[in-house]
Amino acid sequence: MPSKHRFQEKKFLVIPGEKLNLSKRATQPGTELSDKKHAKEAIASDVACLQKMQELLYASGTRSLLIILQGMDAAGKDSAIRHVMGAVNPQGCRVYSFKAPNNSELEHHFLWRAMPCLPGRGMISIFNRSYYEEVLVVRIHPQFLVPQKLPNVDTSSSKSLEKLWKRRYKEIAHFEKSLVANGTLILKFFLHVSAEEQRLRFIERLTNPEKHWKFNSKDMEESGFWENYQQAFEEALARTSTEESPWFVIPSDDKWYARAAIADIVSSRLESLKLDYPSVSAADMALFDQYLAQLQSKK
Amino acid sequence: MPSKHRFQEKKFLVIPGEKLNLSKRATQPGTELSDKKHAKEAIASDVACLQKMQELLYASGTRSLLIILQGMDAAGKDSAIRHVMGAVNPQGCRVYSFKAPNNSELEHHFLWRAMPCLPGRGMISIFNRSYYEEVLVVRIHPQFLVPQKLPNVDTSSSKSLEKLWKRRYKEIAHFEKSLVANGTLILKFFLHVSAEEQRLRFIERLTNPEKHWKFNSKDMEESGFWENYQQAFEEALARTSTEESPWFVIPSDDKWYARAAIADIVSSRLESLKLDYPSVSAADMALFDQYLAQLQSKK
Repeated sequence: MPSKHRFQEKKFLVIPGEKLNLSKRATQPGTELSDKKHAKEAIASDVACLQKMQELLYASGTRSLLIILQGMDAAGKDSAIRHVMGAVNPQGCRVYSFKAPNNSELEHHFLWRAMPCLPGRGMISIFNRSYYEEVLVVRIHPQFLVPQKLPNVDTSSSKSLEKLWKRRYKEIAHFEKSLVANGTLILKFFLHVSAEEQRLRFIERLTNPEKHWKFNSKDMEESGFWENYQQAFEEALARTSTEESPWFVIPSDDKWYARAAIADIVSSRLESLKLDYPSVSAADMALFDQYLAQLQSKK
Repeated sequence: MPSKHRFQEKKFLVIPGEKLNLSKRATQPGTELSDKKHAKEAIASDVACLQKMQELLYASGTRSLLIILQGMDAAGKDSAIRHVMGAVNPQGCRVYSFKAPNNSELEHHFLWRAMPCLPGRGMISIFNRSYYEEVLVVRIHPQFLVPQKLPNVDTSSSKSLEKLWKRRYKEIAHFEKSLVANGTLILKFFLHVSAEEQRLRFIERLTNPEKHWKFNSKDMEESGFWENYQQAFEEALARTSTEESPWFVIPSDDKWYARAAIADIVSSRLESLKLDYPSVSAADMALFDQYLAQLQSKK
């Protein structure tokens, strides 16, 4: 019995090839859910579906799932992971948080460090931030390119940089295309918050002692580049959203709504894979019967 | 407010230096819990504590937790992970299943492949089986040593093999000692089932089509070595249970009882670390106030 899915994912989709204007995309919740209680019920139902789907994914061992979460600081990436994927069997799911690359990672292509984090067949990987940072934060701060020592890139020339971002969009798209061809379902979520909502969440982190550890002075600085980030997201998402590896812009000023929307899309996309428990061959079935007789006679 | 812990962990402990006789250890549940409903309530309460403790572990970023699960096939390792650790934030917890080593792993010391799986500060790693297999399944089948090409080990000489197992116990103990000294809390659980309970669980896997995929013909063969395994476990556990890196023998014929006992020990041990949110320095606090004023004036 398929779950009842409440969200029209089309609403959130970044249409491949179309220009994206984030200021025209809602950060406020839609009307699918009446209140927080309703959202929690919806999440619980989708999470139950997700648990079932994950067991099938794991048991069948033929496909894998990569979820990418991006968003401004305090957009709710961590808590979405906790609430949506928190109830999933940890044996089949790994979360990778991508921070600033270390020295050894800087010696490689920017996609290199993501390789060991990709999900094997039957597995789910969740990227909390990802290689997309290389066309986001690095685009806002091109000086981060200096230690990457890229040939033929002049970090002081905007023309040279433009060429680099375009090349990176293509590299990402090709990379994801080959993952999809290899059996990975890719779902990418941009948690879209308003500047005002971010301001309120920062204030909460600064006033609640149990949230102090989450506050990072860097986040304050980065919020000063709000418009630059919105533009970088608009271009990155538009250029890398494909039918097979789509981006969804999730209204995230209300955390419960955002979590419910993500849970709904993930569980519904997994359902459409129509996975099944692996079938047992006739030869194995005969062997099973033999074992069964052996075990039953042991009593 | 500390959780109410129902289990006396002493009851399950393998006392360092003492001989272990598994046939004298219960596989049947104790009287701590009246029924399955009671067990579920106990697990829910311990899991809530565990979630809180994990956030503290993650936030404080000073310690880490390594949980090792061992047991005969069908002892309930996978489902214990799902039920006990399933509700823990996946961002802070990774599960590693150790299968037969691959060719590249065989070219290294047996502890080598565990290194990248160890928990970093703030993190939890769960080993579903572990390097202990090297003194368990490999002990039952010394031919598995051949591709390891160990110098000065004669796999046809029981004396030479005895020397090897003793060396491995020591290597494991030293390895774990250094992890503990480096800030890792290590908790090791042996899920103790009776041969009869294993027989019933195999029958269930062979008769329930949704469980067919869990059945492995190898498990049938291995169950023929029951006594050898019990002896190998007895020696391995006795030789590697230390005050700082203890083994617990968990009665596991009843899965709910086993899960409740594990949840209780893990949450109670984490509580005794007395972790706290990281304190903010006076300088940072002054900076926080400055940011707060800045944010509040923005409205």
